[in-house]
Amino acid sequence: MPAGLRVMGIDPGLTRCGLSVVDAGQGRQVIPVAVGVVRTPVGAALTQRLLELSQAVNDWMDEYQPEVVALERIFERGNVSTVMHTAHGVGVLMLAAAQRGIEVHMYTPSEVKKAVTGNGRADKKQMTAMITRILGLSEAPKPADAADALALGVCHCWRASTLGYEQRLRSNTLK
Amino acid sequence: MPAGLRVMGIDPGLTRCGLSVVDAGQGRQVIPVAVGVVRTPVGAALTQRLLELSQAVNDWMDEYQPEVVALERIFERGNVSTVMHTAHGVGVLMLAAAQRGIEVHMYTPSEVKKAVTGNGRADKKQMTAMITRILGLSEAPKPADAADALALGVCHCWRASTLGYEQRLRSNTLK
Repeated sequence: MPAGLRVMGIDPGLTRCGLSVVDAGQGRQVIPVAVGVVRTPVGAALTQRLLELSQAVNDWMDEYQPEVVALERIFERGNVSTVMHTAHGVGVLMLAAAQRGIEVHMYTPSEVKKAVTGNGRADKKQMTAMITRILGLSEAPKPADAADALALGVCHCWRASTLGYEQRLRSNTLK
Repeated sequence: MPAGLRVMGIDPGLTRCGLSVVDAGQGRQVIPVAVGVVRTPVGAALTQRLLELSQAVNDWMDEYQPEVVALERIFERGNVSTVMHTAHGVGVLMLAAAQRGIEVHMYTPSEVKKAVTGNGRADKKQMTAMITRILGLSEAPKPADAADALALGVCHCWRASTLGYEQRLRSNTLK
């Protein structure tokens, strides 16, 4: 198991971008380190918003030194202009990781839901309840973007754990 | 007229990104300074491609010190995955401008066609012929992405020229 692996979970967006940092513990244990939401002003120029998002994620990376980023994969549904803005934001977020040599893994919302609750169609309430329990938090994380960022971190820890297990199984080094 | 204004035209893309630099001259004169196409490997990781695009556009900005960027506005048409990749690239390109305090103006393909040929539905052949003539080039720019980047630069010079004229007309300072 990749105990100690530090993962940054990112729920991308320009109006609200959820950021989390979690550490993989023993077995399926995941330890919460930080969670927050970066907001950029809706009325500001797109260039200014991208600059602010870039600065915020770089500050987080400086402070927490994640080894991996787990990023939500976005789709072209809903409001087209919002999706395009989010896609521009994803470019800036991925660039920040690339400039530090941090690996980026992308997960669809249903992959995250399935990993965390066992159900790819879990609703927000179920997700928040599971995340609160898994991370041993004293209260539910808010807003939704913060909870989603934590869920991405948990999802990657568990998937990475399984991947590691399978790799060692294949190479016969499993103890 | 904003004679001397240096504009970088960008036709965004990850597989091919057209870059140009032009200077606004007297009247409707536009002077070509540089043109090129940045390519990133189709098979490489998205993070790597974004990093390479960012490095290339930053190198161009270091070398040519543009005052304004004219960027093609992208739409959610065609292959969805290509559009998303281009949108991620646009985020990285806009960030490079924002980090230097360079203004970004976006133009739709039909705005560029109308500015350059007078016809918002001009085809590639007409566009290339007009750009070659306007810039006094000895041969047509290739590939299409390079010609498009030059057209964006010309479009912005002429639009900026008109904007300046209108502003001075309103403020009664027109000589």
